Amino acid sequence: MPRSPQNRCFGCGPANASGLNLEFLLAGDAAVICLVTVPASFEGPPGFVHGGIIATLLDEAMSKSVRAQGRTTLTRQMEIDYLRPVYSGKPIRVEGRLLRSEGRKHWTEARILSSKGHVLAEGKGLFIEIRSDHTPVAFSSAGANGPAIG
Amino acid sequence: MPRSPQNRCFGCGPANASGLNLEFLLAGDAAVICLVTVPASFEGPPGFVHGGIIATLLDEAMSKSVRAQGRTTLTRQMEIDYLRPVYSGKPIRVEGRLLRSEGRKHWTEARILSSKGHVLAEGKGLFIEIRSDHTPVAFSSAGANGPAIG
Repeated sequence: MPRSPQNRCFGCGPANASGLNLEFLLAGDAAVICLVTVPASFEGPPGFVHGGIIATLLDEAMSKSVRAQGRTTLTRQMEIDYLRPVYSGKPIRVEGRLLRSEGRKHWTEARILSSKGHVLAEGKGLFIEIRSDHTPVAFSSAGANGPAIG
Repeated sequence: MPRSPQNRCFGCGPANASGLNLEFLLAGDAAVICLVTVPASFEGPPGFVHGGIIATLLDEAMSKSVRAQGRTTLTRQMEIDYLRPVYSGKPIRVEGRLLRSEGRKHWTEARILSSKGHVLAEGKGLFIEIRSDHTPVAFSSAGANGPAIG
């Protein structure tokens, strides 16, 4: 997927030197894939990727699965199952998929796999579409209609 | 809460120059509090904290609410509601609370508040206790008994 060189997003921005600099590939069937090796600076326990960074990887994959359809969204809800530890310094595969859309709402899922194909973590997320010129300044918290941070 | 100067955790390690360097205070009633201003390097959309970093803040607060009871845990499940945008460069308050414990399982909640007291994001999490000398190398994925990343 195309990335702006000026993008400073912590997850996917090439211009953020301390970010994850994730690059997603289109995989067809409403899916995106990112192959990444997370460095030690993003560890929680020594040797293992921080749970919040795992959440970031899943959030990015789900968001990008909607972006791949030309829709810009913000995360409204996310659920994560941490199934096995994710090692830092080892290649992993992050997959995101758009499951269903209804108006501005987009339901997605994502997972992280080891190089051996073991599922390490799974996520589900609801994303709310915004206009591309929208700045998220005054969201309501009214259930699934209230979008939030992307 | 005491922090080791050698701790390199992305969330709370003083020795991680590119981490969040979060410091939690005990607040009584099984609660912990962290006052923090997240810098722009952790943004998603320009001006707003990345959804994955918001997850990291909540994960850290929930984990520390159990640690405050002398228990070392790993995250097994987490749910997040993103209610309003979280601005970078503005002071926020992150609160975590231990709700209930049953054997090695600890149920927690956390939230992020603006300086005006608005709830910006909420999380719930299940954490699984490990021995402090435990290295998380071979977790099962068997439901709530299978712990994972902390």
